Formats: sequence, structure tokens, C-alpha cells
Amino acid sequence: MAKNKNQQEFVKEITPRDVDFGQWYTDVILKTDMVDYAPVRGCMVIKPYGYGIWELIQKQMDAEFKATGHENVYMPMLLPESLLMKEAEHVEGFAPEVAWVTQGGTEPLAERLAIRPTSETIFCTMYAKWVQSWRDLPMKYNQWCNVMRWEKSTRPFLRTSEFLWQEGHTIHATAEEAQEEALTMLEVYRKFAEEVLAIPVLVGQKSELEKFAGARATYSMEAMMHDGKALQAGTTHNFGDNFAKAFDIMFLDKDGKQKYVEETSWGVSTRLIGAIIMVHGDDRGLVLPPKVAPIQAVVLPIAAHKPGVTEKAHQIADSLKAAGLRVHIDERDQSAGWKFNEWEMKGVPVRIEVGPRDMENGVVTVCRRDTLEKSTIAIDALTTELPKLLDDVQQGLFAKALAFRDAHIKDVTNMEELGEAVQDGFARGMWCGSDECELEVKNRFNAKTRNMPFDQTPIGDTCVCCGKKATKLIYFGKQY
Amino acid sequence: MAKNKNQQEFVKEITPRDVDFGQWYTDVILKTDMVDYAPVRGCMVIKPYGYGIWELIQKQMDAEFKATGHENVYMPMLLPESLLMKEAEHVEGFAPEVAWVTQGGTEPLAERLAIRPTSETIFCTMYAKWVQSWRDLPMKYNQWCNVMRWEKSTRPFLRTSEFLWQEGHTIHATAEEAQEEALTMLEVYRKFAEEVLAIPVLVGQKSELEKFAGARATYSMEAMMHDGKALQAGTTHNFGDNFAKAFDIMFLDKDGKQKYVEETSWGVSTRLIGAIIMVHGDDRGLVLPPKVAPIQAVVLPIAAHKPGVTEKAHQIADSLKAAGLRVHIDERDQSAGWKFNEWEMKGVPVRIEVGPRDMENGVVTVCRRDTLEKSTIAIDALTTELPKLLDDVQQGLFAKALAFRDAHIKDVTNMEELGEAVQDGFARGMWCGSDECELEVKNRFNAKTRNMPFDQTPIGDTCVCCGKKATKLIYFGKQY
Repeated sequence: MAKNKNQQEFVKEITPRDVDFGQWYTDVILKTDMVDYAPVRGCMVIKPYGYGIWELIQKQMDAEFKATGHENVYMPMLLPESLLMKEAEHVEGFAPEVAWVTQGGTEPLAERLAIRPTSETIFCTMYAKWVQSWRDLPMKYNQWCNVMRWEKSTRPFLRTSEFLWQEGHTIHATAEEAQEEALTMLEVYRKFAEEVLAIPVLVGQKSELEKFAGARATYSMEAMMHDGKALQAGTTHNFGDNFAKAFDIMFLDKDGKQKYVEETSWGVSTRLIGAIIMVHGDDRGLVLPPKVAPIQAVVLPIAAHKPGVTEKAHQIADSLKAAGLRVHIDERDQSAGWKFNEWEMKGVPVRIEVGPRDMENGVVTVCRRDTLEKSTIAIDALTTELPKLLDDVQQGLFAKALAFRDAHIKDVTNMEELGEAVQDGFARGMWCGSDECELEVKNRFNAKTRNMPFDQTPIGDTCVCCGKKATKLIYFGKQY
Repeated sequence: MAKNKNQQEFVKEITPRDVDFGQWYTDVILKTDMVDYAPVRGCMVIKPYGYGIWELIQKQMDAEFKATGHENVYMPMLLPESLLMKEAEHVEGFAPEVAWVTQGGTEPLAERLAIRPTSETIFCTMYAKWVQSWRDLPMKYNQWCNVMRWEKSTRPFLRTSEFLWQEGHTIHATAEEAQEEALTMLEVYRKFAEEVLAIPVLVGQKSELEKFAGARATYSMEAMMHDGKALQAGTTHNFGDNFAKAFDIMFLDKDGKQKYVEETSWGVSTRLIGAIIMVHGDDRGLVLPPKVAPIQAVVLPIAAHKPGVTEKAHQIADSLKAAGLRVHIDERDQSAGWKFNEWEMKGVPVRIEVGPRDMENGVVTVCRRDTLEKSTIAIDALTTELPKLLDDVQQGLFAKALAFRDAHIKDVTNMEELGEAVQDGFARGMWCGSDECELEVKNRFNAKTRNMPFDQTPIGDTCVCCGKKATKLIYFGKQY
């Protein structure tokens, strides 16, 4: 980055959102050093600033998994082809996008090995070995790992051949328990998205066409991006005894009978980072929610050559770090204006300016990234006031995203309204439940069904597509 | 596990260490539910009890990496063959054990992709893109990930086709800085092994024959297992400008000249779990150092049917958890003797027995796993006394392992003494520095050179093998 660029020039480097949202996204992720392209088709290099967000997601979400009784394990990444083929729908869904290992060292393999696109089949294999009686149930395991899906068209964080995720896999003695698990984890995801990522989500059940390959029921959380498109941000699946039958996972129940277990799985991925960018970002660049910001506040010495400024800036940074805040001090030899732009682009929630005039008054000037509002805070009060300000930013981002989302959901009663609504948001309408109508919407508007909310209070009685009797309330939207 | 087995029967399930150390190891890892075999050649399933140890290793080690100025990233797992081939020695070292992806989805690949056996080549590719001037240096990155080496003979944790590890990769402006980095990280590893894992290690430089493929110098920490064999528990490498030249990683230095960067890498893996097992374990099973024990203390209600016992046990467990200790309460319907054995086998550092008689006296009986010594602690004092006891166990394990290790290192002056010493430990002797002598020792005794300590005070002047003038002090030992 050249020195002494003025603000205008600097900001120009990012394409405005409303000119070209796709280009804006690419500009932001590259210029903020979150990610880079790799010399492998469709794969990404996650750089420290992007990976730092993933680490904060992992840490906080993992604590929720453990609080709900889950334990972490690690399963092999290679799956023998025969294993992947055991459950018919699952094969059909994943086989076209599998990367195959055919040679190990100098020997060609007798059986091809798939790099896991997801791990149901290996979890099932091990569960069949581990479970014997009802006393062994439930088993509630999760793993954090990489997976590989050979995608045709890719975009960093949103869709890449390799990505990082967590996948929970659980087995239970009864259908009720498995259903409860699928809904409990959906709620864990919803709470996390809304309270940690500040992203409002619609939770509900996916249609038959859109559910996971091999699942009896799939639930999702759907977030709306700034361009009105949907991002499926997390899913939970109830498999019933589908996989249990394919993999012969049986247990001796209390009543002395051998029964199939009931199974679930659930996952979120590095996609969530894409959602953060596309929900909160603006024309200046990233806007990070404080709870997942690798740097929550940046301390900038102003007129650093003046006596005492640098020392005071360090003192402030040190006391904030000691209070558990993620703080960075920027002492680079660049103009204040250049640094302001740089840290705004990187989405740091709060900037703290430490200058000679403010110091005389025992205060610092703070600027919040979301609203760009400036205020002063007494230096002595910073360790108690900054957390409050960060909390305000966190709440403010959620409120803003929620207002945007709600303003871009329209109730629709026919195809014309639906087509218009999905141009810049979601449509909410009644649906007859047929695959045909779902496909008709997809073909005409490139919009898919999102999910069916749990509150099914009808807003009409005829299908938006065919006009016949409607049975379901459902959301439609274009998607990433 | 059947109920009401008596102690003797139970302990019999593990083969005694001195009867068959290899079988003892297998018994311990399987019966304590650390790991299981997978339906993929040479791969392992890490179960919660084993993965819990890895999580504690990761958490504590990652904090040390960050404290020494490193940041985490994530690089793609697939490496184009042409990339792997760029550095000649590196190819030679790794190509024979690479798993190759040759098909992506339905299309055969134009170029084979290697599943990373290590990531020097992709880090180098990205560094070449990222570094421009001396201002960009150093770059000190690390990643936690899985790697794959197609091994012929495998054993869980010690040598598997897929394993988990961390790999640090750094680039620097000067040779001095790179050398300092390699030695700093070796010291981070040593401190971690000794203070967290309670495993004494010998640190030093590997011989030319034993160094990493492509490195100018490799440093290692070597631990001694209970059978006297060595386990190379961690390595750091100084590549000099070897990879920089192969990958053309240049920067503009302060003096206006284009120069090659100087590079290091360093790694430890899930192997460390194998070391913990084989250094501290005994005939009853695992013995875990408190700092990496997923359960630091198990609370056992004794005569749980007596009034108040269960409540008191919960109260105690809750207060210890609140104090930040990892505590588990075992309320299963099994005899006290059965539970004693079970938790001893699982290596839990301290057992806390809560029984009616002790309760009357306001105390609990505690038993430490390392010495099996029992004592009583006042219930009111538990949250302050238990951490001290755990600390005693941690120190005790290190002292015991150190005494064992030192008693099994013998100074040797000729091949006969060397051959005898490596039967049940390490030999320390002078060496002429030739590959021939190293290979002669390897061929005759199946023992390799471990490393050359930094303190090179000679203990003789002729080579243990050829009798010619010696230049180096070095350790020899058989290895895992």
C-alpha cells in the first residue's frame, strides 16, 4: 500500500456495493487480507485476519456444543468407496462432487478412497461398532475438520472445493430424542448467529427437494445478505433410522428388543465468515461484530512525536488488553487519515485516538465503525466504558441487519408478486407442497424455497404458484 | 464391561508392560477409549478421551505460539504435483509416501494432486506472492491441520497414515533471525514437553542423514519411552534460502538489493499423545499429567444410598468445577472397587472418595494416581488443596520420568558398549561425523543417532564406531 494516499483515493479501491456487489465482496476479502486464492482449483488460503474470525467462531460455538453435552472426536478423512455407497440417497447427492484418491505412495489402490465431503458414513460405521445397549445411548459427537466438495464455480468462504466446518453426529434410542436434538442444535445455531454474529436468521424446515441427501427432515437457518439473496448459514438433519438401517446400527433396548438407533447430524462452516461480510459490510469495507472481531479496538497515537503520546497510547492498550479486550496499537509511520481508512476498511469496531490535546483533558476520542459516530471517554473509565461501547455496536449491528431483513421480506399471493419480491429480498407465501410448483419458481425466478417457519399461521389459502389449495407457509429467495 | 468384576480380574485385561510393551500400549489405548481402528488402512479414529488430550495440548501450545508472535492461517490440503516437485531433496523425501488425488467429481484431473504430507511447498508459493520488501518481514504463520503420509506399518498416535499436527512456517530477512526462530521454537517445545506433558526431553541438532528433506539444519526434542526407545517428539528446521531459491521468494532489502528470504518450519503432532502414554503409563493403565488430563479428578460417592452422600458429592464436584478444575462425578451403578480400577486405568490424576464416615469428619479421602497414596483433605479446603495436589502429581511425574531417563543413558566409548546401552536406553558417545559410522550403528543395532546436544563438552576423543578422531558428542537410541 503506497504511503500518503488521501482518503478519497483509498476508499476508491473498493467497488461500491450498489455498483457491483460481487466485485465489492471480492475487493473486501482480498484488500482486508482475509483470504487469498490458491494454486489449486477452487481452494482458498485463509490468512490471519480471516482465520482469526474462524478461531473466535470455533471457540464460542464449541463451548455451546459442550454445554449441550457433546464431545469432540476425529474421524479419518478418507472414506472407502464402498462405505460412501451404502446409503442410496446419500451417494446420489454426494458422489458427483467427490475428490478421489486412487494411489497411495507407489501403489495403486484396490479401492478408491473419497476425501470426505461429509462424514455420516464413517460415523455410522463406528457407531455400529460402539453401540450395544440402551445404556450406551445417546452418543453425541462432533468434529472440527476440513471437507472437500469438487465444486464447479467457487467463491472464497461461500463455496469452495475445500472448506472448514464442524459436523455433529448423534445417535439416540428414540425418534423423539433425535427430533429434539435436531431442534436443539438449530436453536444453538440461531442463538449463535443472532447473538454472536449479529445476523438475524429465519429458522424452519426445508422442503423435500431441498433437504440433505439421506435425511428424513432438514432444518436450516437462512440469513439475508445485503443484496437480498439468501445464505443458508447452518443446517440440522434428522435421519430417523435411515442410515441406521443402511449401516446396521442396532442396540438392545430396555424391553429386551433389538432396535435401530435414531440419528442426527448438523453443521456450520467457514461460510459464516462470508455471511458476516455480506450482512454487515459497507462501502468502506468490513464491519465486524465485536464478539468475532480479531481486533476489537485499534489504538492510534495522534502526533506521536509529541511528548508522552506514545507512552500513553501503550499504557491504554496494555490496560485494555489486561481487561481481556482484543486491542492492537498501530505505530506505523503513516498519516492518521491513512490509518483511519485502513482500520475502517478492516472493520475494527472501535478506533481509539490518543492525541496531545485530548490527553491534557484526560480523555481519548473514540469512533465506532458501525455509525462512524465520535465521542470522548475519560481515560480512567476506558476499561469499563469500552466494553459497553462494544456491546452497543454489537446490538446496533443486529438491529440494523434485522430492520434491513424485515424491510426486504414481502408477503406474496401470486407469481408476479413473488418474482418481484425475490429481486431484492425474500418472498413469504403459501405453497401447495408440490415439487412442481417449487421447480416452477426456481426455473422462472432462479429462486428456491428457503424454509417453512415453525409458526405456520396461514397468510392465505391458495398456492402462490398453481393457485390450488395451499398447505404450507414458506419463504422463497435467490441464494448463494 | 461386565459388572462386579473384582480388581484382579480387571487389571488382568491389560498386558503387563514388561511382558510385552507393544501389547500393553495397544491394550491401554483401546481399553481406555482413546482411539479405535478405522476401516481405512493405517488411519485412526480419535475418541473423546484421546481427543480431549489433544484439545488441551492445542489450547496451551497455541497460546505459546501467539505469545511468541505467530498467527494462525489455513492452507489448502491439496498440492499440485508440480509444486511438490520444486525442491529436489523435499520431493525425494516425501514423494514415496504421498496419497494422490487423480479424479475430481466426474472428471479425471490433468495434474495429480497430493494430499499434503507437510506444507512447505504451498507456504512457499504464497510467501513468494506476499513478500515484497523488508517491511513485510518476518512473516510467522502456523496452521493446525491434518496431514497424510502413506505409511507401511502403523500404530495409533505413533505412526499413522493420517495424523493431526501443527506446522509453523516463517520467513525472515536474515540468516541470524531464521536461526533464532528455529532455536526459539525448539525451546517453546522443550518447555511445553517438560512443564505441560511432564516429559523430559533431550534437545539438539540432528545429523545430516537424519535431518528433514530440504533443511539446512534440523533440531529435535527426543523423549525416552518406558522401554528405553526414543520418540522424536518435535522438530524445528532452518531451511536457509534453500526453498526461497526453489520458489523464488525475494524481497527488497533496506540496502536496495533484492535478496532471498531465510525460512524455518517446525511441528509437533498427535504423536505427543503416544509419548504421554509410553512415558507415564504403568501396569494399571494410563497415568495422565494433570495439565493435559481431560478429567483431573473423579468424584466417587461411596455407599451412595446413605443419606446425604450423593448431595455432598455433587456439591464438591460443583465447587471444584466452579474453581476451574476438570472434574467428573461417577454415579454409575457399579462397585467402588470396579470404579477405582476403571479410573486408575484411565489415568485420572486424583480420585476423590465421598463416603458417610469421612463426611462426619468433614473430610474426603483422596488418592493420587501416580503413587496411589491416599490422604484426607478437609472438604472446606478442597478448592485450594486439590490444585496443590495436582501440582504435586505434575511435578512428581516429571521427576520420576527424568530419573528413569537419566538412569537409562550410558556414556559409551566403543561399539560393544553402545550396543548394550541401546538395548534399554540411550547411548551417549563421541562420533567422527561420517555417514558411514552412523549407518554402521544403524545396521548393527537398529539404533539411530538422536541428536547432538548444544553443550558439546567432549567425553572422549575417538569415534565410538571407527575409532578415528571424533568431532561431535551425540546420542544414539532405537526409535518409534
